[in-house]
Amino acid sequence: MNKKIRVGLVGYGKAGSAVANILSGDPRYELRWIVRRSAGSEPQFHPGTGIPIFSLEHKSFAELFELDPVDALVDFSSPESIRLYGEEVRKRGIMLVSAISAYSEDDLEYARSLGKDTRVLCSPNITLGINFLIAAAKLLRKIAPFADVEIVEQHFREKPEVSGTARRIAETLEVDGERITSLRFGGIVGHHEVIFGFPHQTVRLTHDSIRREAFGTGVAFALEQLGKCDRGFYSFDDLLLSMMRAELLQ
Amino acid sequence: MNKKIRVGLVGYGKAGSAVANILSGDPRYELRWIVRRSAGSEPQFHPGTGIPIFSLEHKSFAELFELDPVDALVDFSSPESIRLYGEEVRKRGIMLVSAISAYSEDDLEYARSLGKDTRVLCSPNITLGINFLIAAAKLLRKIAPFADVEIVEQHFREKPEVSGTARRIAETLEVDGERITSLRFGGIVGHHEVIFGFPHQTVRLTHDSIRREAFGTGVAFALEQLGKCDRGFYSFDDLLLSMMRAELLQ
Amino acid sequence: MNKKIRVGLVGYGKAGSAVANILSGDPRYELRWIVRRSAGSEPQFHPGTGIPIFSLEHKSFAELFELDPVDALVDFSSPESIRLYGEEVRKRGIMLVSAISAYSEDDLEYARSLGKDTRVLCSPNITLGINFLIAAAKLLRKIAPFADVEIVEQHFREKPEVSGTARRIAETLEVDGERITSLRFGGIVGHHEVIFGFPHQTVRLTHDSIRREAFGTGVAFALEQLGKCDRGFYSFDDLLLSMMRAELLQ
Amino acid sequence: MNKKIRVGLVGYGKAGSAVANILSGDPRYELRWIVRRSAGSEPQFHPGTGIPIFSLEHKSFAELFELDPVDALVDFSSPESIRLYGEEVRKRGIMLVSAISAYSEDDLEYARSLGKDTRVLCSPNITLGINFLIAAAKLLRKIAPFADVEIVEQHFREKPEVSGTARRIAETLEVDGERITSLRFGGIVGHHEVIFGFPHQTVRLTHDSIRREAFGTGVAFALEQLGKCDRGFYSFDDLLLSMMRAELLQ
Repeated sequence: MNKKIRVGLVGYGKAGSAVANILSGDPRYELRWIVRRSAGSEPQFHPGTGIPIFSLEHKSFAELFELDPVDALVDFSSPESIRLYGEEVRKRGIMLVSAISAYSEDDLEYARSLGKDTRVLCSPNITLGINFLIAAAKLLRKIAPFADVEIVEQHFREKPEVSGTARRIAETLEVDGERITSLRFGGIVGHHEVIFGFPHQTVRLTHDSIRREAFGTGVAFALEQLGKCDRGFYSFDDLLLSMMRAELLQ
Repeated sequence: MNKKIRVGLVGYGKAGSAVANILSGDPRYELRWIVRRSAGSEPQFHPGTGIPIFSLEHKSFAELFELDPVDALVDFSSPESIRLYGEEVRKRGIMLVSAISAYSEDDLEYARSLGKDTRVLCSPNITLGINFLIAAAKLLRKIAPFADVEIVEQHFREKPEVSGTARRIAETLEVDGERITSLRFGGIVGHHEVIFGFPHQTVRLTHDSIRREAFGTGVAFALEQLGKCDRGFYSFDDLLLSMMRAELLQ
Repeated sequence: MNKKIRVGLVGYGKAGSAVANILSGDPRYELRWIVRRSAGSEPQFHPGTGIPIFSLEHKSFAELFELDPVDALVDFSSPESIRLYGEEVRKRGIMLVSAISAYSEDDLEYARSLGKDTRVLCSPNITLGINFLIAAAKLLRKIAPFADVEIVEQHFREKPEVSGTARRIAETLEVDGERITSLRFGGIVGHHEVIFGFPHQTVRLTHDSIRREAFGTGVAFALEQLGKCDRGFYSFDDLLLSMMRAELLQ
Repeated sequence: MNKKIRVGLVGYGKAGSAVANILSGDPRYELRWIVRRSAGSEPQFHPGTGIPIFSLEHKSFAELFELDPVDALVDFSSPESIRLYGEEVRKRGIMLVSAISAYSEDDLEYARSLGKDTRVLCSPNITLGINFLIAAAKLLRKIAPFADVEIVEQHFREKPEVSGTARRIAETLEVDGERITSLRFGGIVGHHEVIFGFPHQTVRLTHDSIRREAFGTGVAFALEQLGKCDRGFYSFDDLLLSMMRAELLQ
């Protein structure tokens, strides 16, 4: 029988908390502890579990890794954290999954350097469905470059800017940003659709987010795949494409 | 500059006629002639073109190939035809694209034998979009075997049986036939949808047929890809997967 | 048993011809003849039927009404025709259904004057589904003025301007024209969607055109309803709203 | 300026709590207090507000109405409650909105009797969008009884039975229950779709639930409309149809 992979989580905002919900319920993983920036805020344990939430004001990563060792670290906090845990992760060979989107070029360079000594995955969007959508759309784009492409994204009224995912789809497919349509209405969570218009048929690839816990499913998937890789620096795409490749070469 | 590929078409029912519409308007191809079973029926030329329509009662394939040679033969007729043109195709190295779905095992064996001497593609559904849908769904199924799968197909009221494409999707994904839902209403042409239900997100791959000419686009695509292959026996899937493989290995 | 309503059709373009397909197959109606502008063009009979196609160069409306009387006239030609048949229609009390969208104010004034003596329906879009969509959207807009409204229309790549139907929806709902999104791709026939975005739910009303014959179904519906009305000048909306009213007051 | 309507809420399960979220944030209403069955359970105040949560073990409705009077009572608890507050509501002329679906015939009889003395609305589904969907579908069914009807509902994997809303749609449209298709996959919240299939066009009316707070929006809507009614016993439908009627008769 497999031993559970012990995981530490950095960041306890809305996304981090949703990731904790998933990891604490997945039998493959053992979420050992959560770390957040500020000390004062409630709660001390992840609700419904005995998983402790520490503050960086009270405990350093070195102390945490010593007291309660983990096999993997998941980061949903902010760009600064990687400098705080980086050398510990490198030294101990801890697997790292980071979902930070605001890394500077320097930060990314540093993350890549960690990939020389351990397994590192960095991806701003760590949702399985969205990443599959992009990979599949890219394939169809190559197969049928003559098809018209439209990208439609629908989000709640308050979301101000064009969805980053939609922009990433446009870049990957090498279509003009004008092909993106952003609709904002009511409280819809998040809908992405790539339309391939052929003269006599239409293909649509769509993704609907239901709730933030989708990030957790993505992390669980990433941890499992990363566990099979050699040390190195990976994106979510890399893992997905490598699975696709394996499948297609069978 | 490329020379046009000269094409002969066997079969002039609704699908065959739609294929003639596409091939006669595609600059890569030169549709030289059409052959059909019965002599009596109108017209003598494909409407709006000077492309002649012959009857097998008046001309054999050997005569046709002699009088007006072609590089490729496209078959949208019935299972018997392949025995009439097979040896000529083999002898002359003519590329063959057959969309016949009712071949017996013997017929398929014979088609495979032709693949030893020339390039042969046999596929019961020769639509680009549907074949892509199946390939993409298969990949996602492998990546996320834990997702629930539902297959929904919607067709016009009169279509009696479950769509063959839906059944093929179910087989390919190895899901129970009970996961197929067939809706029949009004005059809708043809809609196929594969739903992947995740706990916190949903991915949908959908295909809408607009008109029969989609077969023509599929033939044009198949002819181009087949032209790049070595002699052999191929399915539409083979061509698609080989393109995907090439793309993923870049 | 009801006697069939005898119908004459003016206009034999793509829409007119599709309307002829429907009326000639509907047991409630007897399509007696079709009239078109130009004499030279084929055919002389509507394909698959014995319904004659006349040219205005050879026969006037007065002669036609005399030789082969009808109970209703359906106009899918151009704005000028109404001046040619108007007084005959008025004199003979022939029911008129006109689907001309390019009438001038003067033309409409004249059509309204015919409504004093007979039953006249003028509507630029004579599709049942679209007109229902607009009526239903208007009701929901009144019930929930606080919901966000988005109008999406999708048509084939070549359609240059924003769909007139989408503009009419925006006007009816009193939402800004900027709420209309027009997507153009491939060969999709025609898709209209009105989205009502609520904070915690979404309502979508959608209409898909499959083929032009939908105009015929609309005409058949309009003729039946108009037959129950007093003389007057009506729009398709009027008939629909009066049916809805009758239903709601039960 | 309008005075705020003071509201008391009975029931604090998942739905009741979501309704409290909405009513406490709607400027038209002042949620004064919440009542629930069991005393022991946390919390004492609705989170993020100072709205107290009482237990029926400690306070009777008579005491509550005396201490902190309200204009309206909203019931999301269980069938028994109406017997506890009924006579008080009658005596004080308090407006009642009940969303209980499991009332017996006796209970409904009693609720109707309350309608003689005050304004009472009873509806098992109090969502604005769903109720509009049903009303609109009913209208289209009357207008186009010849169209094929299909009802599709999609819910999360664990929902065992056919959705009650789908069954209510089928009854209202007088279509066979076999026209309902229930799909269960992943964690999708709730999707209802009524398809009207015409020979040459398709109309779809769809509703997507995003979260339970939709009940709160429905309650807020119901309270406002009920405030304009005479005393009596109403369903959500009644209010909606009366608005539609008013709109159509303008």
